[in-house]
Amino acid sequence: MAAPLKEEKVFKDPVHKYIYVQDQTIWDLINTKEFQRLRRIRQLGTCFLTFHGAEHSRFSHSLGVYEVTRKIISQFERNQYEDWPREERLLCLCAALLHDVGHGPFSHSIEKTFGTHHEEWSCRIVLGDTEVNRVLQQVSPTFPQQVAGVIAKTYTHEIVVSLVSSQLDADRMDYLLRDAYFTGVNYGTFDLERILRVMRPYQGHIVVKESGMHAVEDYLMSRYQMYWQVYFHPVTRSADIVLHKIFGRAKELYEQNYAFRFILPPLVRLFEKKLTVHDYYLLDEALMQTTLMQWAFEEDAILADLCSRFLQRRLFPYVTLDRIDPEQIERLRGQMDLLGVDPGYYLEIDFPSDLSYDVYRPGEHDEKLPILLLDSKDNLSEISRKSEIVRSISGIHMGKYHLYYPQELLSNHLHQLDPDLQKLFGK
Amino acid sequence: MAAPLKEEKVFKDPVHKYIYVQDQTIWDLINTKEFQRLRRIRQLGTCFLTFHGAEHSRFSHSLGVYEVTRKIISQFERNQYEDWPREERLLCLCAALLHDVGHGPFSHSIEKTFGTHHEEWSCRIVLGDTEVNRVLQQVSPTFPQQVAGVIAKTYTHEIVVSLVSSQLDADRMDYLLRDAYFTGVNYGTFDLERILRVMRPYQGHIVVKESGMHAVEDYLMSRYQMYWQVYFHPVTRSADIVLHKIFGRAKELYEQNYAFRFILPPLVRLFEKKLTVHDYYLLDEALMQTTLMQWAFEEDAILADLCSRFLQRRLFPYVTLDRIDPEQIERLRGQMDLLGVDPGYYLEIDFPSDLSYDVYRPGEHDEKLPILLLDSKDNLSEISRKSEIVRSISGIHMGKYHLYYPQELLSNHLHQLDPDLQKLFGK
Amino acid sequence: MAAPLKEEKVFKDPVHKYIYVQDQTIWDLINTKEFQRLRRIRQLGTCFLTFHGAEHSRFSHSLGVYEVTRKIISQFERNQYEDWPREERLLCLCAALLHDVGHGPFSHSIEKTFGTHHEEWSCRIVLGDTEVNRVLQQVSPTFPQQVAGVIAKTYTHEIVVSLVSSQLDADRMDYLLRDAYFTGVNYGTFDLERILRVMRPYQGHIVVKESGMHAVEDYLMSRYQMYWQVYFHPVTRSADIVLHKIFGRAKELYEQNYAFRFILPPLVRLFEKKLTVHDYYLLDEALMQTTLMQWAFEEDAILADLCSRFLQRRLFPYVTLDRIDPEQIERLRGQMDLLGVDPGYYLEIDFPSDLSYDVYRPGEHDEKLPILLLDSKDNLSEISRKSEIVRSISGIHMGKYHLYYPQELLSNHLHQLDPDLQKLFGK
Amino acid sequence: MAAPLKEEKVFKDPVHKYIYVQDQTIWDLINTKEFQRLRRIRQLGTCFLTFHGAEHSRFSHSLGVYEVTRKIISQFERNQYEDWPREERLLCLCAALLHDVGHGPFSHSIEKTFGTHHEEWSCRIVLGDTEVNRVLQQVSPTFPQQVAGVIAKTYTHEIVVSLVSSQLDADRMDYLLRDAYFTGVNYGTFDLERILRVMRPYQGHIVVKESGMHAVEDYLMSRYQMYWQVYFHPVTRSADIVLHKIFGRAKELYEQNYAFRFILPPLVRLFEKKLTVHDYYLLDEALMQTTLMQWAFEEDAILADLCSRFLQRRLFPYVTLDRIDPEQIERLRGQMDLLGVDPGYYLEIDFPSDLSYDVYRPGEHDEKLPILLLDSKDNLSEISRKSEIVRSISGIHMGKYHLYYPQELLSNHLHQLDPDLQKLFGK
Repeated sequence: MAAPLKEEKVFKDPVHKYIYVQDQTIWDLINTKEFQRLRRIRQLGTCFLTFHGAEHSRFSHSLGVYEVTRKIISQFERNQYEDWPREERLLCLCAALLHDVGHGPFSHSIEKTFGTHHEEWSCRIVLGDTEVNRVLQQVSPTFPQQVAGVIAKTYTHEIVVSLVSSQLDADRMDYLLRDAYFTGVNYGTFDLERILRVMRPYQGHIVVKESGMHAVEDYLMSRYQMYWQVYFHPVTRSADIVLHKIFGRAKELYEQNYAFRFILPPLVRLFEKKLTVHDYYLLDEALMQTTLMQWAFEEDAILADLCSRFLQRRLFPYVTLDRIDPEQIERLRGQMDLLGVDPGYYLEIDFPSDLSYDVYRPGEHDEKLPILLLDSKDNLSEISRKSEIVRSISGIHMGKYHLYYPQELLSNHLHQLDPDLQKLFGK
Repeated sequence: MAAPLKEEKVFKDPVHKYIYVQDQTIWDLINTKEFQRLRRIRQLGTCFLTFHGAEHSRFSHSLGVYEVTRKIISQFERNQYEDWPREERLLCLCAALLHDVGHGPFSHSIEKTFGTHHEEWSCRIVLGDTEVNRVLQQVSPTFPQQVAGVIAKTYTHEIVVSLVSSQLDADRMDYLLRDAYFTGVNYGTFDLERILRVMRPYQGHIVVKESGMHAVEDYLMSRYQMYWQVYFHPVTRSADIVLHKIFGRAKELYEQNYAFRFILPPLVRLFEKKLTVHDYYLLDEALMQTTLMQWAFEEDAILADLCSRFLQRRLFPYVTLDRIDPEQIERLRGQMDLLGVDPGYYLEIDFPSDLSYDVYRPGEHDEKLPILLLDSKDNLSEISRKSEIVRSISGIHMGKYHLYYPQELLSNHLHQLDPDLQKLFGK
Repeated sequence: MAAPLKEEKVFKDPVHKYIYVQDQTIWDLINTKEFQRLRRIRQLGTCFLTFHGAEHSRFSHSLGVYEVTRKIISQFERNQYEDWPREERLLCLCAALLHDVGHGPFSHSIEKTFGTHHEEWSCRIVLGDTEVNRVLQQVSPTFPQQVAGVIAKTYTHEIVVSLVSSQLDADRMDYLLRDAYFTGVNYGTFDLERILRVMRPYQGHIVVKESGMHAVEDYLMSRYQMYWQVYFHPVTRSADIVLHKIFGRAKELYEQNYAFRFILPPLVRLFEKKLTVHDYYLLDEALMQTTLMQWAFEEDAILADLCSRFLQRRLFPYVTLDRIDPEQIERLRGQMDLLGVDPGYYLEIDFPSDLSYDVYRPGEHDEKLPILLLDSKDNLSEISRKSEIVRSISGIHMGKYHLYYPQELLSNHLHQLDPDLQKLFGK
Repeated sequence: MAAPLKEEKVFKDPVHKYIYVQDQTIWDLINTKEFQRLRRIRQLGTCFLTFHGAEHSRFSHSLGVYEVTRKIISQFERNQYEDWPREERLLCLCAALLHDVGHGPFSHSIEKTFGTHHEEWSCRIVLGDTEVNRVLQQVSPTFPQQVAGVIAKTYTHEIVVSLVSSQLDADRMDYLLRDAYFTGVNYGTFDLERILRVMRPYQGHIVVKESGMHAVEDYLMSRYQMYWQVYFHPVTRSADIVLHKIFGRAKELYEQNYAFRFILPPLVRLFEKKLTVHDYYLLDEALMQTTLMQWAFEEDAILADLCSRFLQRRLFPYVTLDRIDPEQIERLRGQMDLLGVDPGYYLEIDFPSDLSYDVYRPGEHDEKLPILLLDSKDNLSEISRKSEIVRSISGIHMGKYHLYYPQELLSNHLHQLDPDLQKLFGK
């Protein structure tokens, strides 16, 4: 049922130069409305407010993950590795392409507020009444289930899951390169072609030849750098915090039966936790930004104010703290209350932490398969046993505490705070 | 009134590596809500449907034009050229930054349908009751008027206008490099640093040392390539055509007092040609895309259908024709009518043409100052007199005719068309 | 007899990222001493004196030509084009790899003085008593003859010759990209992957799909730019002139039985036109540079002086002239003679001219096969019939005259020249 | 005495785009014959036998070190840092340009065999009867002494020394980027502009703002990667070993009064440890390679054989060992002797080790100034106290043992070795 295209098709891509499509199924999936919707979801959420180039979409990332997967498999096939199950090719490609199809607008903030989860939504779209599902059905009736299994990491063949989701997967390889390209930072650059050359299938795993250890170190360092320079950038965190507060406020108002001057059905459904696959299709960043724009004129002062801040990029500044004194923060909240600045919406303590590479997290939600090195005597060992550098970036890396607050608190009210709290803000 | 910043600020930029801000005025302009709005307007309109990387905004382009201008001026100052009027520095920088501030969502389609013009809007924003205007006022009461003059090309000093708007201006230098970077094509790349090194101020003009002629040829060729490979790409044109048809249909419906199930005030004002500066602030691509998404469910079948096509990227395919037979097209329209496919909304003939570089267009709307070469004996000559290559790409370049139509016309109705018309579609 | 390698081997290459070797024959050829000798011949001769990065060797270029050829063929095979003669694969690859194996040190200067020709030498090495020949023999006894035939362009199948030697061949595609990379200019950059995608075999020719016309224009413009910015750079020409004068002087001295304090056998054999393949192996740029270094201390003042100039980069400056007045030059020579500056060795008129792309040169020595476009109706047409840009850079392009002379002529003797001649030097 | 150039001059450079020369002294130094000689010394010695692109010279690297230094100083001046001693500018630039002027051909092998040292030679050239010295004298009579002081790291102002020679100096910043560019590996790439932005002069040191810590980590990781992927590449080591054996053999023969068929005076002087500055000028890689080429035909079989191997790239293969059993090696030597293969020239154990970044090596020869972070409270701390990553790559990093031997030993004599020794070679 799966057929090759009569003529190979290409997409021009800034990261991989070209993306090659060779299967009718892949071509049809790209043209579904659910996949096209990813054009309206940014890859890095609010990060464009820090790095103005970061305006790229999940659409381009998803094509990229597909392309990296295609390259890996094509290398496996060219080298005729016996441990590679050739019959899984199309499944890998489809799962790679679709693994992010369930991402919503500003996913992180939304998920935190409303308890949705993008992986779950990816599965719902793959399995539900959708164009995506109909295309997959044409391969075989059980194919959608298999694709969903790979996305949910429950598929029985680890080797298939690990291509799309592991410590060294096509997803990360694409996003590191892509986010580096679009933000313009070059810390995220590593030699993809070299990594691909040292990967091979081995007894049901994807492993790396030991001679490629330094290449993997380089890749993990890229990741480490991207986390600290881009993903955890305090300005991006500030935008996330403002957005999170907006949704929190809206949800609270909704629960209090506040009459919004502007609200579209998919959002109502989100508030009521009754989102259907069709609602989800409508729920893109354009809708979200239009809503924020309209809410900037809502009667509720807090909601209106937070929305204006977000749209005009008047985010919360921050101070960096080595440690947090809960009693002191409590007093700060108290005094903000007295000044008429609601600390629930105008104060946040943030503590970014990274797990660049960690093997020992069994049972955790997003546990990923570790990276295995294969030595010349066919022994496997987990990379952090061999590499001091990997050890040094394994485990939880501590950032510092950041205390976010509105600029006006200091410019208007600083003298009204306790001297001790004034000192907190470094004055 | 204009003050330097205490500490230079930078933006990370993928094209220029860093963008340096040294003046308080520039910093304040960037932080106005009108300038921040440019984040919600794509630089290349519908081009992202052809080149998925082209998701960059007018915001990043505007910063880029500012940065190129800053670099040119800084080179002029470092070399202490006497013909450079140092007092115009801030005016140049502000005009460079703001020249596109009046761009609306999908400008080309909107402007064609509603007769608005982005340059006019840039001036209205500069001169109106806006945050931008208030920042400019702080430099001097007449400063907004000067900035508007440069944007409108009526400012008395040609040298200032030509930095922002000429055949070799900061605007084009940035957009060629930026659009090449984000689309991933590399035809648009030229050596900016080399061009900057051969430019100099001379007797009220910006001129190029004759020894830099090949560098300018290279730049003009980049432009030529970008036009034909990117800006006139038939898929992008197809998206533009669908969009243009959407706005045309909506306008017609509005004039017929059709009751839209969804329409936001700024759009009503656009239809009524009563847009204020405040409406314009709200009129961004998020609003436009949300509207298209909602209109995909309007009762009017044509509007709903066209919006779905746009959002799901089911654009019009095309055939390429060397010439057009009006009588034949007329017959095609007739038969489409009979088949119930409105040719007013489902057929379009497009004829892209480029004016890569043309000196001889006095009186035309967007006439641009030509490129002058300065030889070692201080003679000026217009570049196409010296360069055969420039001559070869001067004048109007003809593309071919493209006939756009809905895919279904052929798949469902081809056999119902005249044999002669069937031949038109190459069957 | 031709066998694939058990395991693909790679070379890291800055231009193509990796160079892939898959055949035992190719691997063995690379390891011959004649091919390794190319490491000691610079790709761009004296150009490193103008662009200090241009220190790359013919070795790396030859690998690059091989790799581009391999990519083209692999694309032809992947697309299963019927017009591609699969059995010619190894022949194409070997000819691509070896086409420059006969290059000597500073080829252009040497060839002009001594009448050798590198293509002839490539054939002698392929056919003579060499390691290269022995490797080729292992494919089949007639294989060396076939390889030499392709290099000499006498092989019967045009399609094979045109891959290695035509207006759009692997040789040029590699050298434009490589020379651009190592000099650091980026005018020579074009999109190789895109060119490869539009090439196809067709009825015994390599042709280009008409839709790829702009890609070819871009490639030809790169070439045009590289000629004028790099290959014809007046400083490089000056170095070539000094070198040419050195060899001319040495030849004259040798013919006068001058007793060189230092001269190695291969050079003697060159002077006597009795070079063997073994001598040629020894004749590399190290030997040549050591000779120049030693000759800087020869008794013959002219030889010693010219060698010092070359090694210490005290080249001849130049004046640019629109036209040459032979009578005036004659007088200049006369006055130089009187001043004791031999005009035969210290004056040169140079006139660079380029044939970027020219179809109409039948019978000329290095006539190249033209570029053919294939339209959708399977008609072939030579590209300059379709492209105005190609027309504009076709035919002979005139540079200007450059008059080269030693700096000292002006600093010491200018006042002794006729006023008219002084004017020639712009004083 | 130091004057600016009338017009800024530029060199096109692939790494820094352009190299800007603004001082007459710098321009004159570049044009001395001693500096031009660096064009004939490769930056990476024998590394071009592993990475064929690595054919770049010390000349281009020296210009690069100058340019990085110029950029650092220009940033210091633009920001008007008070702790920057402006009067040291020209001294820094000259020392940066000249610090490698004493490098000889294949320095590492030569230095190991003959006990010369390039830094010492740099000082001799700066202070001796040379064109370089005469140019420096024109600045002031004591200026050469000052430049030599900076190169020898004895100059009193640490801040000047540390620009040219420290853990984060212009030398390393250029060579990492340059070697990465020319080899084509991209592990060596870091963001130079970002590093420059976080450096500042502070109380006599060059320090880094603490917020730039991750940028420095990235730079140190680049260095780590380049060491292990490029500088310690076993094929390069093999070439170094063969070269070292050649010089060892030649020295031994010379001491035995062997009559070389070919030997040039500078080499004789090297053997006799009587090299003058003039000899040194003649001693370039062309001379060395010509010598090797001639020696390939010497009567001494070992010398001739080793030279052929080097020129034809028939290097020693190797086996990797976790540890070395001296007794076993001794037996191997014994058996090689019996087989007529001199283990003194045909066996080598190599143990690469890296000191990527190490603070605690007082008194060692090439101790480098550490990297200091400056926090917001103006405290200085050595970077490895703050960064776990830097700690992980500090200290001596162990590679593995490599045992190098001639291929023929195994192909011809393997069965004649003890079974135990056969096992050593993995058979």
